[in-house]
Amino acid sequence: MPTYERLKGFRDFYPPEMAARREVIDAVEDAGRRYGFREIETPRLERAEMWTDKSGDDIVDELYAFEDHGGRHVTLAPELTPTVARMYAAKAQELSKPVKWMSTRPFWRYEQVQQGRFREFYQTNVDIFGSSEPEADAEVLAVAADALTGLGLTADDFEFRVSHRDILGSLLRSFDADVDVTDAIRAVDKSEKVDEDEYLDLLYDAGLAYDQAREFDALLDVTDPANLDELTEFAPEAEGLADAVENLQAVLAATDDFGAGEHCDLSLRTARGLDYYTGAVFECFDSTGEVSRSVFGGGRYDDLIEEFGGQPTPAVGVAPGYAPLTLLLERAGVMPDAELSTDYYVLRVGDTRDVAARVARDLRERGNVVESDLAGRSFGAQMGYADSVNAETVVIVGEQDLADGNVTVKDMRSGDQTTAPVDEFPGEHDRPTYDDFA
Amino acid sequence: MPTYERLKGFRDFYPPEMAARREVIDAVEDAGRRYGFREIETPRLERAEMWTDKSGDDIVDELYAFEDHGGRHVTLAPELTPTVARMYAAKAQELSKPVKWMSTRPFWRYEQVQQGRFREFYQTNVDIFGSSEPEADAEVLAVAADALTGLGLTADDFEFRVSHRDILGSLLRSFDADVDVTDAIRAVDKSEKVDEDEYLDLLYDAGLAYDQAREFDALLDVTDPANLDELTEFAPEAEGLADAVENLQAVLAATDDFGAGEHCDLSLRTARGLDYYTGAVFECFDSTGEVSRSVFGGGRYDDLIEEFGGQPTPAVGVAPGYAPLTLLLERAGVMPDAELSTDYYVLRVGDTRDVAARVARDLRERGNVVESDLAGRSFGAQMGYADSVNAETVVIVGEQDLADGNVTVKDMRSGDQTTAPVDEFPGEHDRPTYDDFA
Repeated sequence: MPTYERLKGFRDFYPPEMAARREVIDAVEDAGRRYGFREIETPRLERAEMWTDKSGDDIVDELYAFEDHGGRHVTLAPELTPTVARMYAAKAQELSKPVKWMSTRPFWRYEQVQQGRFREFYQTNVDIFGSSEPEADAEVLAVAADALTGLGLTADDFEFRVSHRDILGSLLRSFDADVDVTDAIRAVDKSEKVDEDEYLDLLYDAGLAYDQAREFDALLDVTDPANLDELTEFAPEAEGLADAVENLQAVLAATDDFGAGEHCDLSLRTARGLDYYTGAVFECFDSTGEVSRSVFGGGRYDDLIEEFGGQPTPAVGVAPGYAPLTLLLERAGVMPDAELSTDYYVLRVGDTRDVAARVARDLRERGNVVESDLAGRSFGAQMGYADSVNAETVVIVGEQDLADGNVTVKDMRSGDQTTAPVDEFPGEHDRPTYDDFA
Repeated sequence: MPTYERLKGFRDFYPPEMAARREVIDAVEDAGRRYGFREIETPRLERAEMWTDKSGDDIVDELYAFEDHGGRHVTLAPELTPTVARMYAAKAQELSKPVKWMSTRPFWRYEQVQQGRFREFYQTNVDIFGSSEPEADAEVLAVAADALTGLGLTADDFEFRVSHRDILGSLLRSFDADVDVTDAIRAVDKSEKVDEDEYLDLLYDAGLAYDQAREFDALLDVTDPANLDELTEFAPEAEGLADAVENLQAVLAATDDFGAGEHCDLSLRTARGLDYYTGAVFECFDSTGEVSRSVFGGGRYDDLIEEFGGQPTPAVGVAPGYAPLTLLLERAGVMPDAELSTDYYVLRVGDTRDVAARVARDLRERGNVVESDLAGRSFGAQMGYADSVNAETVVIVGEQDLADGNVTVKDMRSGDQTTAPVDEFPGEHDRPTYDDFA
């Protein structure tokens, strides 16, 4: 019979790796949960028009799109934002604002597979709809910071580089030139990935003269939020610049109050590649630079709900992706261990299934993870299995011990064992150990 | 701008409904977890040949299949079994047996949408590979029973109807007739959905004479496992019958030891529609009959791993589906409430963001769900929001109270409120309430 291969860029997660991954996902979701983000669940398949109607987007070429049996043009979702925009628009009237939604699921893009990038990739999307206040921007940053520190990362391990689309846009428009702001911002986004000449060429292509490009780029050196006012002094007439500067300063001040300030660095060259961002934007980087790519990003996208059919609605979000986050956790040496854990193995010797099952059931009712023999195996084979699943304690239910009213309790780390009265096991103990009966 | 519609048969889960659904999923997964089932995660997209190579299966017509950018014939997975068979076969040598895997995810079939049936549907698959012992069959039944009772269902609410494919097959082959066993078993599967004449016609079409069909059907009346021996007496020469009877009796005896016996009824007419089952099979039904369809099913499929390219490997599993399970829980009145829960709302009055943020952070560090103002709103608007998210306690951080060194703690159920020293809040309390400070 045929053997089938997994698709390229798709992954199977076996139990040990999945256990580690689940710890990471739980930490991220738990951070969001503690801030009151509410779980939603969303269709994996959507109408392809949700992406193809926005022409010119790179994402369209990478869609897993097809025609369904009903002749609909459908696609596996490559991102969550259009879906939550659709959901928000459908119930905007009855939702209590601000709306704070969270979900973890895979997305799909037909991309070149490389380290930390797959065709099926998992993210936790954390979004706030209905607040244009700087506290909303700061809260998604605080959630991301809590998620990472909750996993054992410290301020030495990662940094959020925070920028602002409207500052970049206002500055660009302040030059006496016909600038394509979108292209120029894309150039800024690439500034750290290409050499200086290429970067200046990209700004030139976007409409700036070379001396303007150099002048513009020099403005982006500012790292102290207080010095952002120099930008307003440079271009006092630039429309929206003072407001944008004030907004970014307010966002950074709020991150201080929210306890995430130490993780946030002002970095105007962090522009984010996606066109839909409208205000504060940020990317998470490995502070050591060993993980060279951005770990994940986020920002404000105040126009998108309206573009997807809703009322104008301010929105801000972040979406940690698990493949790049795993690279960061591994670099920092805090990726959870990939191993199974088992509280008890109840080992049967002879015709003792009824008692062994009762013991296992009682232990499970107390919330423990309990395995027992399903394969009619020998004492040694059962011990080997118990070891392979990292059982902490083995409870041996043997015919001879039972005749004396006992079971044997074996600590698998030390190898110590003792007997316990079967009628009192587990008895009053929620998690009985060797020490309780020795 | 355009408004986009969700695809038919696909669902958006908003937070209140999702909270209830998450409780249900958690209860099922927790039951599996306590038996030592280990979580895996699997690709949503697979090679379509994994289903189309098995010609003649109804499932093929319902596939969401298409050609990807690399010219591969791919499909959204309509079920998990081929994927876990592929995964098991790929690592069979290094896996510690028996393998006990569990996962929750959606599957897709282009079916007629009706009550409890969607085109995107979610299941928790619970499977054991590598044990042919009756304890393995009994363990998946015990997991399913624990999951349902953990949700508040009782023995009066549901029943597992347990049957055995080999008993049906052996009996059918014992007649002096050229019987198509697969067709005849499908007829048995339909026996309770069609009238008697149609049922007998189906058995006739499968090769039995009408008097044989009546005789065969009468044999299926047995409800006491001890009386299964009468079948062996009826057809003492039937190949495999005595073994199959003994196996089913052993499975039922093991469910007694495992505490699930009260939920299991012998019901030979429960045949399961899927062809790949090989031994014990079972379906969960609403005992009141109000939910008329099977809630979910499972059984033994000892040939499937080999069909998907692995070594011969016994396997047994169950896969509760959340749409039909929700119908059962609603019928029984134990579906969890669809509502948000929030431990604290920290309400800000005046310029108190730094203190309010500190209070919120301390409460979150203790694991609580804490929301605060993100929209610069009035006292009344913040109270309204706190009410809308069912906040249990509101902590009011106001300028005047703070001048006296206090915050106000308000119990939202009773409306009672009192002051608490801000320096001692939350202080030593993990979950401070009005009562702690009144």
